[in-house]
Amino acid sequence: MKEQNVLNKIRIVLSHTSHPGNIGAAARAMKTMGLERLYLVNPKSFPDPTADARAAGAVDVLQNAQICTTLDEALAGTVLAVAVTARRRDLSHELLPARQAASRMLELSTQGEVALLFGTEMSGLCNAELDRCQLLATIPANPEFSSLNLGSAVQLLAYELRMASLGEIEVPVAKTFEVASFEDVERFYQHLEQTIVATDFLDPANPGRLMQRVRRLFARARMEKEEVSILRGILTSVDKFIKK
Amino acid sequence: MKEQNVLNKIRIVLSHTSHPGNIGAAARAMKTMGLERLYLVNPKSFPDPTADARAAGAVDVLQNAQICTTLDEALAGTVLAVAVTARRRDLSHELLPARQAASRMLELSTQGEVALLFGTEMSGLCNAELDRCQLLATIPANPEFSSLNLGSAVQLLAYELRMASLGEIEVPVAKTFEVASFEDVERFYQHLEQTIVATDFLDPANPGRLMQRVRRLFARARMEKEEVSILRGILTSVDKFIKK
Repeated sequence: MKEQNVLNKIRIVLSHTSHPGNIGAAARAMKTMGLERLYLVNPKSFPDPTADARAAGAVDVLQNAQICTTLDEALAGTVLAVAVTARRRDLSHELLPARQAASRMLELSTQGEVALLFGTEMSGLCNAELDRCQLLATIPANPEFSSLNLGSAVQLLAYELRMASLGEIEVPVAKTFEVASFEDVERFYQHLEQTIVATDFLDPANPGRLMQRVRRLFARARMEKEEVSILRGILTSVDKFIKK
Repeated sequence: MKEQNVLNKIRIVLSHTSHPGNIGAAARAMKTMGLERLYLVNPKSFPDPTADARAAGAVDVLQNAQICTTLDEALAGTVLAVAVTARRRDLSHELLPARQAASRMLELSTQGEVALLFGTEMSGLCNAELDRCQLLATIPANPEFSSLNLGSAVQLLAYELRMASLGEIEVPVAKTFEVASFEDVERFYQHLEQTIVATDFLDPANPGRLMQRVRRLFARARMEKEEVSILRGILTSVDKFIKK
């Protein structure tokens, strides 16, 4: 899987962040998604023990962060700069939802470095900063309460970048249990039927659709060999009482 | 758009949360995505001013939170309980990435309430809690650093639920069978356990993992109300013989 290389082309740029705790939270959020390159434009307080504490196991991201005095410095050498914004601006650039923006960023990352820019906690990005970007990304939040915490916004975008880098959708590998064979399952149905006829639950003269219902239930579960053994063991333990 | 109604069927359940700040962050994360129903199982400290501070404009979610003393209380009346887990467990239920899990949850929410369960900050969910759920959801994080902050994990899942509700993801049409409730299914497990203890199939002094295996099998099948009735009818028909 090549997602590491792709994600290494992404810079997360935080502009004029007020609270060092949010820088730490952003670092942690980034690392959980495989992003490592943090750029800080004029952070109010950095380095800061509060940032380290919130970063938890991602202090290395903070230690390797680039501190810049201007946004231009943070964007130097990039082929695309994307600004995260909550609102649609008057004179706005193209605006994409986070998912599509992430996909566009990865596309461009094959050609060079790509920056994703987050503004301050209170006022976001100013127009001069937006002017430096080529694309706006927005998180489709609740219109009545769209105020995401900065760390959460970084988390969501980093997640979408990771998901895009993993290709379609990553399906975790299932544990390899041995699936029951057709015959195993059929023998279970026969056994169950015999037992419930013996307990008078099923009237063989008038069976209705009972066994079909049972088959449908267990078919959905797609049983494993050992599960069939357990169920047959239960039936055998019951049979002993009925035959007394 | 009907997303509000759908998202109202979702309960976010936080079990034994240690830090009240994380409860506040979860409330804020929920509200930004249009989720409002928070359930707290034995929170270490709640209400708490730290929670209110981190919730920012989402204090109403905290004020309306349901405080429960057991997980069963928080899950009562639900038709699906999904556990968020970082690791793949030994004897695990079906495991889906967050995106697909969200889509599955919305599918089931047409039939009743659905719970999404988060464990403690340090140790996640215990096996007894996982046993109560029918599905596991995982965030496809960096395998070398998968430790998401609790608020961030809630944020990501809430986001995927919102995205699914907005129709980003095609939600398959729900089947027309009535799904069994949490209580129905739990009563079936209890009944089965009593019966197989009575037949000596299960030794209560040495139960091993038998009931977990059974739970896993039926969890996969996601039972309908009528199917639970059939299985309990079978057990009742068996009980008559054992008690003779």
